[in-house]
Amino acid sequence: MTPGKSREGGRRGRPGYDRDSLLEVAVAVFNERGYDGTGMEELSRRLGITKSAIYHHVSGKEELLDLAVSRALDALFAVLDEEQDAPGGATARLERTVRRAVKVLVRELPYVTLLLRVHGNSEAEKRALARRREFDHRVAELVARAAAEGGIRPDLDPRLASRLMFGTVNSLIEWYRPGGDLSGDALADAVTTFIFDGLRAAAPPDAGG
Amino acid sequence: MTPGKSREGGRRGRPGYDRDSLLEVAVAVFNERGYDGTGMEELSRRLGITKSAIYHHVSGKEELLDLAVSRALDALFAVLDEEQDAPGGATARLERTVRRAVKVLVRELPYVTLLLRVHGNSEAEKRALARRREFDHRVAELVARAAAEGGIRPDLDPRLASRLMFGTVNSLIEWYRPGGDLSGDALADAVTTFIFDGLRAAAPPDAGG
Repeated sequence: MTPGKSREGGRRGRPGYDRDSLLEVAVAVFNERGYDGTGMEELSRRLGITKSAIYHHVSGKEELLDLAVSRALDALFAVLDEEQDAPGGATARLERTVRRAVKVLVRELPYVTLLLRVHGNSEAEKRALARRREFDHRVAELVARAAAEGGIRPDLDPRLASRLMFGTVNSLIEWYRPGGDLSGDALADAVTTFIFDGLRAAAPPDAGG
Repeated sequence: MTPGKSREGGRRGRPGYDRDSLLEVAVAVFNERGYDGTGMEELSRRLGITKSAIYHHVSGKEELLDLAVSRALDALFAVLDEEQDAPGGATARLERTVRRAVKVLVRELPYVTLLLRVHGNSEAEKRALARRREFDHRVAELVARAAAEGGIRPDLDPRLASRLMFGTVNSLIEWYRPGGDLSGDALADAVTTFIFDGLRAAAPPDAGG
């Protein structure tokens, strides 16, 4: 987020970035100003290097988006693939998937944030949305299997349950910041409890109110 | 969303819009392209009227944002004000607040969507964020009172519970579209059940897994 970070190459066009660190700054700028609203001019200014120095690393804004969202999606798909082949019922695997997805979100926060804010106005954004839909679809299948084995309450439609579950997990990008009082593990536990067991205490004092 | 809608005034600068219908189209454009990324030029093109015809109704983009987010926030604060003075325990009032907030979201969907996507890059956005924080703060107080009366499970910190609750409700803007199979009332009931009672069926078959 600091303009001029890694300035040794300055305006001479020799970047002081490798592709990962350039990606990190670009993603911070995209998340701050919106991917649509950020041009190469702005990226160049914030990176403190010329546009041609950026093109030394990537073909343009779209490749930066591809790299960033792949970092988030590859980690999320890895969780799904592992839990798909794990032992135990679908409900237990769904619960572990949620807990582990929260941890991915914490670890790859800027990249997941960018993924979740993509609009679909360009080809790179459409590719990101398609992979995101595939992920959502595969988790929804696991929710349906958990419902079929009786693990999900029958008064919630499994598709709706799946959407509310994603909604809760994805909303963490709006406020969670690593390094505070709440560790990623504690957050993952709390979110899993909230999603599967709800806010209500076991014996509400005023359930009829 | 249709370019050229209400074209009778065309390019002559006499708008075929009143302020409400102009706001409706502007909000649709903001939600589609991002508030930051939308200039008066783009608004003019999409409305099918000149920029000076837009200035006939509003002082500019910032006033459009003020009007739009006030429509969402006024409705949400009205729910809070009413439930604050309603009879019954805090937990029951919190539950009703959630159910009614979902209904406001459904009724004012484009306006709530815009509110929730504001970044804070301009004064109008900062004003919107300040009012949104005030709303969140007042609901968080109600969550704390519900926790104090024993209505919220003790293993979830009330501040975290409050954030997860908002996260779930606010995430509806990402996928819910009125007019489909799921009515606003059914959605409000399902979201309230999810938030307070969780996904898990009463007797999970594989709780030890």
